[in-house]
Amino acid sequence: MTGEKDATEITGRAGVDLALVHYPVYNKHREVVGSAVTNLDIHDIARACRTFGVDNFYVVTPFHDQQELVRKIIRHWQHGHGATANSDRRDALTTVSIWDDLIHLYSHLVGNWGERPFVMATCARSGRGCLSPSEIEDRLAREKRILLLFGTAWGMADEIIDGADALLPPVQGRGSYNHLSVRSAASIILDRLLGLRNA
Amino acid sequence: MTGEKDATEITGRAGVDLALVHYPVYNKHREVVGSAVTNLDIHDIARACRTFGVDNFYVVTPFHDQQELVRKIIRHWQHGHGATANSDRRDALTTVSIWDDLIHLYSHLVGNWGERPFVMATCARSGRGCLSPSEIEDRLAREKRILLLFGTAWGMADEIIDGADALLPPVQGRGSYNHLSVRSAASIILDRLLGLRNA
Repeated sequence: MTGEKDATEITGRAGVDLALVHYPVYNKHREVVGSAVTNLDIHDIARACRTFGVDNFYVVTPFHDQQELVRKIIRHWQHGHGATANSDRRDALTTVSIWDDLIHLYSHLVGNWGERPFVMATCARSGRGCLSPSEIEDRLAREKRILLLFGTAWGMADEIIDGADALLPPVQGRGSYNHLSVRSAASIILDRLLGLRNA
Repeated sequence: MTGEKDATEITGRAGVDLALVHYPVYNKHREVVGSAVTNLDIHDIARACRTFGVDNFYVVTPFHDQQELVRKIIRHWQHGHGATANSDRRDALTTVSIWDDLIHLYSHLVGNWGERPFVMATCARSGRGCLSPSEIEDRLAREKRILLLFGTAWGMADEIIDGADALLPPVQGRGSYNHLSVRSAASIILDRLLGLRNA
């Protein structure tokens, strides 16, 4: 794809992309399902991506009606009334593209960058070896590109997590309650990885 | 109000509350307006509050139809179908209460805790002296209670910011784009103040 931006040119660190996965994910009974696209997921995560210098926000869903919904949101804010009413949202949505599944996305990225990015999955449960803060710092410093995977509903299916190169530690609060929206979790993780802390 | 929890008993640090202000706020023309309550603001911020140990989430709006909307959301998730469908949301919404304005809220808090909490306003623009990270740490360690103020729309009116005891630094990304949703900004700031970083 032409026109994709490369943050490494600006920051000297890994270029970071983000994918929001709607299938395969778990429902609350831990059955594998496809989730519906949530309008505000697209807006909030696109705005967080733009704020933290994420180059591309990939919305992953195999359902054509859901893909059409995402296209309608983008059209409204880029060309419709929304574009003049709120140019900040128009800006943010330039990072968004739609993909059927991770297989196609990975294949596109290999074509684009010459190799698969280093894929970091996020998960609300702590599980098998998560990266430590220094390992994360190290990856950000020496990988060419990193792809962050976020799941909707009750989280990504194990096969997706197992197919990633590493797992980020879950966002920990002050107790056992850990039910952030994916909008909140994505914002926090982008801030932890890419935010300027002493600004 | 009876039944409010006191985080200082658990953590030995300031108990933290959060208020989401819908009036007076600016619209994009910097006119003072009242904003409509957004359903997902209530959910996302309530879930972030529960995750990070915030004791009380005050929704501030003088508009009775908007107050009724918040009550309907709470009722649905606490007593309606939502309560059985998703008990995590029921849990989160126990922190929510509704207030006409900050005058009434401050008066309630003085009655409850014997003094006004230390009020920290948040703002997307950097302005007059924001607290440094060490000053924030210091306040968290020695204040009894802290109230965080977040604004909707294009931010809280100057009179609200000026009436706070201190201003938190804006969340800084990787460039000049700085248009996070209030859901994202609240999540990030709670994580910065209260999250466990090396979990």
